[in-house]
Amino acid sequence: MKHFVISFFLLLFLSPLVYAQGNYTIVIHGGAGNVDRQRVPEAREAEFYAKLNEALDAGEAILKAGGSSLDAVEAAVRIMEDSPKFNAGRGAVFTYEGGNELDASIMCGSKITAGAIAGVTNIRNPITTARMVMEQTPHVLLTGKGAEQFAREQGVEIVDPSYFFDQYRYDQLQESLRQMQEQGYMETGDMMGTVGAVALDVHGNLAAATSTGGMTAKRYNRVGDSPIIGAGTYANNASCAVSATGHGEFFIKYAVAFDISARMLYKGSSLDEAANGIINGTLNDLNVSGGLVAVDKDGNVSMPFNTSGMFRGYTKSSGERVVKIFAD
Amino acid sequence: MKHFVISFFLLLFLSPLVYAQGNYTIVIHGGAGNVDRQRVPEAREAEFYAKLNEALDAGEAILKAGGSSLDAVEAAVRIMEDSPKFNAGRGAVFTYEGGNELDASIMCGSKITAGAIAGVTNIRNPITTARMVMEQTPHVLLTGKGAEQFAREQGVEIVDPSYFFDQYRYDQLQESLRQMQEQGYMETGDMMGTVGAVALDVHGNLAAATSTGGMTAKRYNRVGDSPIIGAGTYANNASCAVSATGHGEFFIKYAVAFDISARMLYKGSSLDEAANGIINGTLNDLNVSGGLVAVDKDGNVSMPFNTSGMFRGYTKSSGERVVKIFAD
Repeated sequence: MKHFVISFFLLLFLSPLVYAQGNYTIVIHGGAGNVDRQRVPEAREAEFYAKLNEALDAGEAILKAGGSSLDAVEAAVRIMEDSPKFNAGRGAVFTYEGGNELDASIMCGSKITAGAIAGVTNIRNPITTARMVMEQTPHVLLTGKGAEQFAREQGVEIVDPSYFFDQYRYDQLQESLRQMQEQGYMETGDMMGTVGAVALDVHGNLAAATSTGGMTAKRYNRVGDSPIIGAGTYANNASCAVSATGHGEFFIKYAVAFDISARMLYKGSSLDEAANGIINGTLNDLNVSGGLVAVDKDGNVSMPFNTSGMFRGYTKSSGERVVKIFAD
Repeated sequence: MKHFVISFFLLLFLSPLVYAQGNYTIVIHGGAGNVDRQRVPEAREAEFYAKLNEALDAGEAILKAGGSSLDAVEAAVRIMEDSPKFNAGRGAVFTYEGGNELDASIMCGSKITAGAIAGVTNIRNPITTARMVMEQTPHVLLTGKGAEQFAREQGVEIVDPSYFFDQYRYDQLQESLRQMQEQGYMETGDMMGTVGAVALDVHGNLAAATSTGGMTAKRYNRVGDSPIIGAGTYANNASCAVSATGHGEFFIKYAVAFDISARMLYKGSSLDEAANGIINGTLNDLNVSGGLVAVDKDGNVSMPFNTSGMFRGYTKSSGERVVKIFAD
């Protein structure tokens, strides 16, 4: 009986710890933009839901087995990189010159380590090379030909640049170039399509990953926020993990991903107050389009965006799963 | 008499405004590192003081005439870029392959606009091209060949890469390569030498600028914190302007420049509490070397570093001027 009582009280004390230990969450996005429900046929909508679910499944399988948040976000992002549906990897938008230049970054919230690559043209899965920069080098950001050389030396899959050719994206470029010639400026695309994932694993570790093809018709080896730690990607076990999508230049100038962590740590904001405050406050007031996905150290999720839609979803150890495209 | 009384009270009310309107401050650095007093001959020390004073003079002349903080920081940085004494422009360190790759960024605290270039090999004054990115394009960061093409189109001074050859820096590279071959790793250089400037002008506008050749023997088109807004450079009229120098990878992962602004805005920290808290707190605890210069919207100056020295100085409209190398 005495043993029973001791065991009972031990369980009573330990159960919150055991429970916390078991919690995981993964949140993904496939870009924010002006998604018009009228113009997305149901079949195409279903394909997007299927791909988002596939990415969530890949990340969740790792988390459920006790794997790391880093492995989970990398796996989820790779699936979206391999799909021509999103502006990352296989579906990257075209540059002004008709090529593709890919950017990606990843961050580990427990060690505060990070890796990123920018402006690569022949790496099938930029997110995996970004992770190698984090784990195999003393550096954070490698660019262009140098990043490609590093990737080759690491033995990652190199593809012919034609791998990234996609007729739909190429037509987008032609339309953008036509607009520039006729109106002198380009309308921002219907869909931005950057992809990203953030996760909390059962060990309490946060991670974030982002991958993109950037902006249609970009020139001069322009780099946006996706490979910039603190702008498009940030993770810190003390606060949150964030992956952003939107008008990258503003996400850099406002250090959006880091700012969410700073508001939580310094002002005591909740994840959602911080994330919403920036996307639907600061950036919205500036007429800057975008969104982000974030998870905090307690597994709370925030997915704000100020466009008409954002491909997004999350799944939790509780079994809860949400996958959405439009605002409602 | 009545007019006199009214005038007297008007003056009494307006004088703080007039006074505030007239205040300016400029702060510069030429890098933080392990500067051993025994090993710096007095003649060389004097040369450094002269060059730092020349950079301060150039910035101050602009501020005194009512010019903008942006013009002032650009002018001060150009002088240090043109000197082989600092690791920026003319005195850039060598890459692993024996070349030079320059990075720079600039930010305007009133408009929250910014421009940066990374990995350029033939632009005499990277800071000026960074400013053109800010003012002439919708972008923040251009890299490599694309940034060079943009610079050519803007008509900035292009030099043959041999312009950046400096025997002292080249010998540093050979020493680093020898260390890597013999010990498998490189000791970090005695002197980091990145340059930067921050200023408050009489109109109350803040600006920050940073320029560097990066790390000796860097490979794979590595990019450090200097061209990353929020890491090496940040300015916001609501808080402060910051230019950093040190082990760039950590300045990126800790978003050092933006974090100072965040601590001021969200925690109510003073400039010095925020800047010291990061350099002599967070980074020092991680054994990360570096320093920074910062000025806040009231003209307060902070110049923390955790190395044995930092080339640094400031001058104010009050006439106060400080130029120092060592810690004391």
